[in-house]
Amino acid sequence: MPSLLRRAALVLLALAAVVPAQADDGYRLWLRYDPVGAEHLATYRARVTQVVLERESPTLLAARDELVRGLSGLLDTGVASVDRVTQSGAVVIGTPRSSDLIARLGLDLTEAGEEGYVIRSGQVDGHEATIVAANTDVGVLYGAFHFLRLLQTRQPIDRLAIAEAPALDLRVLNHWDNLDRTVERGYAGQSLWDWHRLPGLVDPRYTDYARANASLGINGTVLTNVNANALVLSTRYLEKVEALADVFRPYGIRVYLTARFSAPIEAGGLETADPLDPEVAAWWQAKTDEIYETIPDFGGFLVKANSEGQPGPQDYGRTHADGANMLADAVGDRGVVMWRAFVYSAEDATDRHKQAVNEFVPLDGTFRDNVLVQVKNGAIDFQPREPFHPLFGTMPETPLMMEFQITKEYLGFATHLAYLGTMWEEVLSADTYADGPGSTVADVIDGDLHDYPITGMAGVANIGSDRNWSGSIFDQANWYAFGRMAWSPRLGAEAVAAEWVAQTFTDDPALLEPVVEMMMDSRQAVVDYMTPLGLHHLMATGHHYGPGPWVGDLGRPEWNPTYYHNADAEGIGFDRTDAGSDAVSQYHEPLATQWNDPATTPEAFLLWFHHLPWDYTVASSGRTLWHELVVRYSRGVDRVEAMQETWAGLESYVDPERFESVSQNLAIQRDEAQWWRDASLAYFQTFADRPLPEGYAPPERSLAYYQSLSFPYAPGN
Amino acid sequence: MPSLLRRAALVLLALAAVVPAQADDGYRLWLRYDPVGAEHLATYRARVTQVVLERESPTLLAARDELVRGLSGLLDTGVASVDRVTQSGAVVIGTPRSSDLIARLGLDLTEAGEEGYVIRSGQVDGHEATIVAANTDVGVLYGAFHFLRLLQTRQPIDRLAIAEAPALDLRVLNHWDNLDRTVERGYAGQSLWDWHRLPGLVDPRYTDYARANASLGINGTVLTNVNANALVLSTRYLEKVEALADVFRPYGIRVYLTARFSAPIEAGGLETADPLDPEVAAWWQAKTDEIYETIPDFGGFLVKANSEGQPGPQDYGRTHADGANMLADAVGDRGVVMWRAFVYSAEDATDRHKQAVNEFVPLDGTFRDNVLVQVKNGAIDFQPREPFHPLFGTMPETPLMMEFQITKEYLGFATHLAYLGTMWEEVLSADTYADGPGSTVADVIDGDLHDYPITGMAGVANIGSDRNWSGSIFDQANWYAFGRMAWSPRLGAEAVAAEWVAQTFTDDPALLEPVVEMMMDSRQAVVDYMTPLGLHHLMATGHHYGPGPWVGDLGRPEWNPTYYHNADAEGIGFDRTDAGSDAVSQYHEPLATQWNDPATTPEAFLLWFHHLPWDYTVASSGRTLWHELVVRYSRGVDRVEAMQETWAGLESYVDPERFESVSQNLAIQRDEAQWWRDASLAYFQTFADRPLPEGYAPPERSLAYYQSLSFPYAPGN
Repeated sequence: MPSLLRRAALVLLALAAVVPAQADDGYRLWLRYDPVGAEHLATYRARVTQVVLERESPTLLAARDELVRGLSGLLDTGVASVDRVTQSGAVVIGTPRSSDLIARLGLDLTEAGEEGYVIRSGQVDGHEATIVAANTDVGVLYGAFHFLRLLQTRQPIDRLAIAEAPALDLRVLNHWDNLDRTVERGYAGQSLWDWHRLPGLVDPRYTDYARANASLGINGTVLTNVNANALVLSTRYLEKVEALADVFRPYGIRVYLTARFSAPIEAGGLETADPLDPEVAAWWQAKTDEIYETIPDFGGFLVKANSEGQPGPQDYGRTHADGANMLADAVGDRGVVMWRAFVYSAEDATDRHKQAVNEFVPLDGTFRDNVLVQVKNGAIDFQPREPFHPLFGTMPETPLMMEFQITKEYLGFATHLAYLGTMWEEVLSADTYADGPGSTVADVIDGDLHDYPITGMAGVANIGSDRNWSGSIFDQANWYAFGRMAWSPRLGAEAVAAEWVAQTFTDDPALLEPVVEMMMDSRQAVVDYMTPLGLHHLMATGHHYGPGPWVGDLGRPEWNPTYYHNADAEGIGFDRTDAGSDAVSQYHEPLATQWNDPATTPEAFLLWFHHLPWDYTVASSGRTLWHELVVRYSRGVDRVEAMQETWAGLESYVDPERFESVSQNLAIQRDEAQWWRDASLAYFQTFADRPLPEGYAPPERSLAYYQSLSFPYAPGN
Repeated sequence: MPSLLRRAALVLLALAAVVPAQADDGYRLWLRYDPVGAEHLATYRARVTQVVLERESPTLLAARDELVRGLSGLLDTGVASVDRVTQSGAVVIGTPRSSDLIARLGLDLTEAGEEGYVIRSGQVDGHEATIVAANTDVGVLYGAFHFLRLLQTRQPIDRLAIAEAPALDLRVLNHWDNLDRTVERGYAGQSLWDWHRLPGLVDPRYTDYARANASLGINGTVLTNVNANALVLSTRYLEKVEALADVFRPYGIRVYLTARFSAPIEAGGLETADPLDPEVAAWWQAKTDEIYETIPDFGGFLVKANSEGQPGPQDYGRTHADGANMLADAVGDRGVVMWRAFVYSAEDATDRHKQAVNEFVPLDGTFRDNVLVQVKNGAIDFQPREPFHPLFGTMPETPLMMEFQITKEYLGFATHLAYLGTMWEEVLSADTYADGPGSTVADVIDGDLHDYPITGMAGVANIGSDRNWSGSIFDQANWYAFGRMAWSPRLGAEAVAAEWVAQTFTDDPALLEPVVEMMMDSRQAVVDYMTPLGLHHLMATGHHYGPGPWVGDLGRPEWNPTYYHNADAEGIGFDRTDAGSDAVSQYHEPLATQWNDPATTPEAFLLWFHHLPWDYTVASSGRTLWHELVVRYSRGVDRVEAMQETWAGLESYVDPERFESVSQNLAIQRDEAQWWRDASLAYFQTFADRPLPEGYAPPERSLAYYQSLSFPYAPGN
């Protein structure tokens, strides 16, 4: 019956939607620029009456146009664009090189560096003005977006003295987009890149993509999947890449491509792809030169090699460094090579957790200067929670860049509300002890700890052709958070969430506070209803949609959920202590010792590092492990219900279309959280052989039912 | 250099797009409802001040809401919705059953029938009013859209006396949409149906889809591909179908599904799908009953059987009638079975042109009353031009419904501008001579000729997730034309084009006239540059993108372009005379005799029916066949250039976003027309062994170059 009622409600909604009050499909992301309320209008309008740009460049025009568009919207009045200050309220933008006006002000732009900016309130030619100045055009663009954000979040703008610069050099999206427009692990429709119709058809959406990224400071985009296709390196496809690069360039976004390591064979007709073969090196050199002739600011290559069946230098008895350096030489000082550390070999029975350290640490210091090794946040694969990757802090001579996954492959796709800012903050603030206490992962990747010459952060994009870009409104927050944290890894998840909510919905505390709270709790809810207490990789096979803890028949042991939870009559968990795989030894002390002992292991990672008996006493609660698992799984479902309640109370603050889409997603999440809980407990109960504690409802259906479900067309696979 | 210039222009455009004047992405289709000009505003406003609906139903509410939305937009003022006439300018809508007011007027609604309507200017309760009345709620909805169309096309609305009813009963879209959201022969993004997130997530776009269809009178939609998947019949998927049906129902749109003939085996666990097996019939009966319990107004099944590898009754030695009738019995009087006549068997060496007649004519009169046989417009496969299908006029005892292909599988995908209204008019007005002269195809399908108890027209949809629905602005015209011609098959392509242009762009003759002219010429341009003089099926293999006349190595003869053009040193063309495959004999006299002789065969079909020497004299021009081919191929390219010129002159009448997207597509079409011409002539020249006539440029590249091109990711395959 609830289904019937819901259906009826949807029909009513469908009818209501015919005459929309203020329908909003989410396309504008956080760049909405709707008028500010009356309480800010007068003060803002007094400070902003015109945008002043003295000399033009494509990037400075983008900055000016964004300011004119944004300020005109926010102030609900036309804001003029002029080339000199004519009245009070001027917003003067430029660099000392492009603007005599800016040059005359003699601002100290040291802090702004290459990509940062300074925003100052002051007097220009006798008028009250705001100056947005930088050493480079793109710094001005970033400053313009910062200034807009101040108004969007209703900050005072009358006494500004801001200086900002990004903490990381490379802030790049990784699109796992295929040439047929499917997106690996994509839950937001097709790839934005319409390769077939490029370069002839240039979708205006590409410009909006660039605007959104520039507003966060993202300065690079890898267009193609790490499971790469050499075809993109063909001349015909490079013309298509060029068309995208031309759109992105004014926004400070450089284009990168994934390099299929065997391309010299597949595209070049050679018999080998051995990186030490001179013909191979020459092929890459010529191909790279061709790319740079087409795209002079090409960023470089991202490579997944010798991992999950991809070709690589080890196919020829060479090392990752041999492969990376050959490509790095081809690129030269024009760009970089980002070489992924997500490797596990088809033949190696070692705990996958350990393989990256085993393979890469011996190579430390042997990579070219323009190589970065790109490391996932954890050693397994973007699980709802993982301890930080042991590579962080163990390669002082090699720039390690962070790879986060924005798309929610393992956290409920696009329907589950899970704000990832908390996960990323947790990882970035984790202490590696690489140089004693206080050596956080953020200190590693921003180069502070090891004085890296180049730094970066990559995010696997959650962007697709869906009208709302990310598959859901709240998934936009993860794109936003990635960009902001790549600019400033210590910004903090809560501050970022609040920024996003204020821009995306409203700064009214009646909505902002409960929504931020909901976001801050949301990722823990997923951990609870999918993989509590350090469990991991229990998702169904292939598409990773829904629970599959019972799967144990896949070709390789480490593909199987049973390998990771290892449940038996005695207990559950993966023994990574010195009595087990000894992955703990890859961490610096005191972590290696602490995590070797369940008593000193954080409960969040208990079953990540330990196989423990069902009757093991969980310290924080005093419950048995089995009991605690039931409590956590159930708590996860409860948290989603609480999110539903929170959201239901906010209807009057949100336009109907976005309100309803979030409500619908939360209802799906509620049902799927219950499914996860019930299926997981029904399965683990067959080992634990214990009843559910009193007060906890048994699974709604039989284990056989859950095992019978199949989803051949789940997206992203 | 032109490429560089174009690229630079695009960048400028991208920048310009940042501050859009009046950007329009085409989402609103022909339902734009922008304010009418000053010259109409006063008169329209005087006649329209309120919408009056006495008693509500979901469909009447949809009608009222559309009127309120549309009229408020067109008149640029709020048009009130009330439940009785309170002032002059009332638009009174309803049925005699739902409205005492309407009943009291005593209108003659005979002509309106079950789905039609009457629109009258008159007095109601002493006030000037317009009455939109019908016998059914959906008739009112259609009348509401008609009334809106009058204003959208700037017709007078002060003395209306309109009565309309559709000529055909079933006006249905066929979506060749797969459950993984790919669309076979789809060039507009993904399937609209987000199966994975249904029924939980109901995209508001589904409502706009229903609105657009209802505005044309389309009353059914087959959601799934004719190459069917039994999974859609599972209970889990039927819940998803139900959610869509619930959205569509108020708009008078019934949902249909494709039935995979082997579903009893795949989904039911039976060992056979033999239609005469009682267990098979019982399975379909139970499944159909389950569907009707979920979706009470389910339309029925569409079946592709024993064609291109699909399972069917012939697998069990049964006939198409055996299969169709078994399903028809399961459906009963609740719906229909649409059984496709597009059959060609893997074993039959007969000219494919003849197989449908051979298989179906003997079954005439043996189908159940609720079966329609769905026949493509031509006997091959949706070529740019085909003679009408010989089945039309040869099955007097079996309702034949028309199958048109709206999506342009063989006419340049979504980038080429090709208005299909002219093609459809050509087919519908073709004389079958089934009952002497004047027995047109339209007379067959609308039942006039053979007194069919039920009639219909199907269109293979060109709709997808692209923001503009159809992949390009001008492809929207084909959706529009299909709907309008399904309602009224004798409407005429030019009238429909003018309607569409007026609603989509402007009724200003400065744009309307040249654009209609361009549309009317556009399909002939495609015929010329792809397959002139009756050539057919020369497209590249699989995806059908670009020319592939040289392909001759495919598994079955009739898959190969070489089979169809049959070029050799002597000449070119498919001999379908009595000396050849004798397909001509399947047509009524005098066509059979006329088309048996090249001298009396229309030149448009010359090489369709005849293999002729390269020196054959083409009557209309006196040129040799080779010369005429060169002229026609070249003329096709010239026509596209003329379209580019026409469009370039219209910039001031169109918003920049749509103007530019059409311009970009025309540039692609120009390049691809040249490619078609050059590749085809380079290839045919190897047989003709003659130079190009003076004044005609040789192909730009070598034949080897054209043959080397491959497009592994062309869409729609």
